[in-house]
Amino acid sequence: MFRLTALVSALALTASMAAMADALPTTAPAPADNPTTPEKVELGKMLYHDPRLSSTGTVSCASCHNVMAGGEDSRPNSMGVRAQTGGRSAPTVWNAAFNAVQFWDGRAASLEEQAAGPVTNPIEMGMKSWDDVVARLKTIKGYQHAFEAAFGKDSISKDNATKAIAAYERTLITPNSAYDKYVKGDKAAMSAQQVRGMNKAVELGCTSCHSGPAFNGSGSYQKFPMHPNGYFEAQYHFSKDLGRAEVTKQDSDKHLWKVPTLRNIALTAPYMHNGAVPTLDKAVRLMGKLQLDTILEDDDVADIVAFLTALTGEFPEQTMPRLPGTPGATFNP
Amino acid sequence: MFRLTALVSALALTASMAAMADALPTTAPAPADNPTTPEKVELGKMLYHDPRLSSTGTVSCASCHNVMAGGEDSRPNSMGVRAQTGGRSAPTVWNAAFNAVQFWDGRAASLEEQAAGPVTNPIEMGMKSWDDVVARLKTIKGYQHAFEAAFGKDSISKDNATKAIAAYERTLITPNSAYDKYVKGDKAAMSAQQVRGMNKAVELGCTSCHSGPAFNGSGSYQKFPMHPNGYFEAQYHFSKDLGRAEVTKQDSDKHLWKVPTLRNIALTAPYMHNGAVPTLDKAVRLMGKLQLDTILEDDDVADIVAFLTALTGEFPEQTMPRLPGTPGATFNP
Repeated sequence: MFRLTALVSALALTASMAAMADALPTTAPAPADNPTTPEKVELGKMLYHDPRLSSTGTVSCASCHNVMAGGEDSRPNSMGVRAQTGGRSAPTVWNAAFNAVQFWDGRAASLEEQAAGPVTNPIEMGMKSWDDVVARLKTIKGYQHAFEAAFGKDSISKDNATKAIAAYERTLITPNSAYDKYVKGDKAAMSAQQVRGMNKAVELGCTSCHSGPAFNGSGSYQKFPMHPNGYFEAQYHFSKDLGRAEVTKQDSDKHLWKVPTLRNIALTAPYMHNGAVPTLDKAVRLMGKLQLDTILEDDDVADIVAFLTALTGEFPEQTMPRLPGTPGATFNP
Repeated sequence: MFRLTALVSALALTASMAAMADALPTTAPAPADNPTTPEKVELGKMLYHDPRLSSTGTVSCASCHNVMAGGEDSRPNSMGVRAQTGGRSAPTVWNAAFNAVQFWDGRAASLEEQAAGPVTNPIEMGMKSWDDVVARLKTIKGYQHAFEAAFGKDSISKDNATKAIAAYERTLITPNSAYDKYVKGDKAAMSAQQVRGMNKAVELGCTSCHSGPAFNGSGSYQKFPMHPNGYFEAQYHFSKDLGRAEVTKQDSDKHLWKVPTLRNIALTAPYMHNGAVPTLDKAVRLMGKLQLDTILEDDDVADIVAFLTALTGEFPEQTMPRLPGTPGATFNP
């Protein structure tokens, strides 16, 4: 009997292993109407880091999606203009290019569409309209030049600004994690514990949803919590937010969420859509209970956490953009 | 008579020209107890850009002294944690290494001393105490390593953090402005209008206070407004703030201010200690009236503004620092 169980497990594991995700690509595909060019990337990097895209001149894309760090802000909920906070935790911008849809509820179909959102969200960057953003950008001569280089003469517009930001974001990729090296054949790249954690994650079914090279389900939605639990709900309030149903107003979309990437997850605490879970081991344990209806053993939690740290990639060195001024005058925030 | 006047003017001009400031040095002197090292600069750059030095985890030194821009925030008054604002405008960090004293009121004798201030200022970065900052930094393993590289084992402290930030700031120098090239002998580096503006600034006496390579009076204080004017006061409220007297409580220090640098001034609107003046031409005109009791001609204002744009230097290319995470856990803001 022992032999048979062992054999079955071994077979199951082999099958699962065969389904393990590929290494992370080092380039991201771009849509046909927005091919990535160095000029767009440079402009996008400027816009991404420019707090003048917010009403107060204090909040940039980078404020909540900090590329000097894990691509978010280490806070449960981000803080927008005038210290306002929302109910969701900033997802990482690193490898967002590999998300088939954007935002926790998938309400943006592309990076371009996503980039347009926070700028005019009253609790995020608080601009009244994109017309106001465009008018402001037009007062900044350096942007006239940068848009011209990227898109041609007199090309400052919402469309081009968001295209440039998306082009920049497509360069934010973190390859060569221990996991990537491991799947490419360097079996020493992961520790024995990380390999155990990986196998456990496969065996439990974590990677059925967190699938693909970015471990993000390639655009699929999943219910969370799948197995609601009063004890955890009282503590974390996961069900207060209806998720995708807030957008679609469909009952069937209640508590459906875009599967978030596991890449660099060790750097993006706190966890879950509302940032209510402060540590990765707690997050793993909760996912076991709420998604798989399984109480994970301490050893398994530790192994899975070790595996997840193997998904921390190499962050490309970036130069700081120079933000063009309005010589001799303010931009009037 | 015309000839005599012309001769006297020419002589005065020659004498003034002889007193024109040298080109900006490309390195800044460091205090004996804090020699600049690459390890300190790297650590300082990390700390300078890390919003986790603020209570909410949203405000870094760079938030108000943005090195991607003119070294400040383009706002009349900076916005600290929880959207609080004070009464003064953020001075530029670029070339601050050449200020003999720091802050508008000169209350810090060094960059090291300055760096300690905003972190625990309740309306700026809002940390309760430096003990709290140190405790937080100690939870971040990457900082343990970076401090060790810069200062030796177990060296996370307020003193070393501020030393590292100061060491980084000493690298923030913008040489090779048109003016610098001009005084080094490249007479084509400034336009005829810029040369006229320079001569006018000397002739009027602007450079008696804005003296030295950084045009910052090398640590001197000056009264502002020197010739108070009810009309401008009603509009700009310059006298509401007592300046240096707020620190010293001495009547003789009322409305005394550190002479601010003119370097990169075209990029640091709005102007004056309270950021009340939106444009450089307005600022020049006001300085004429309030400091020199002179109503400047429009042409002279335009020439002086042109000269001031010749003080915009070359900004060194910088790589973004990597901010170390607390793998698997938040830093608990």
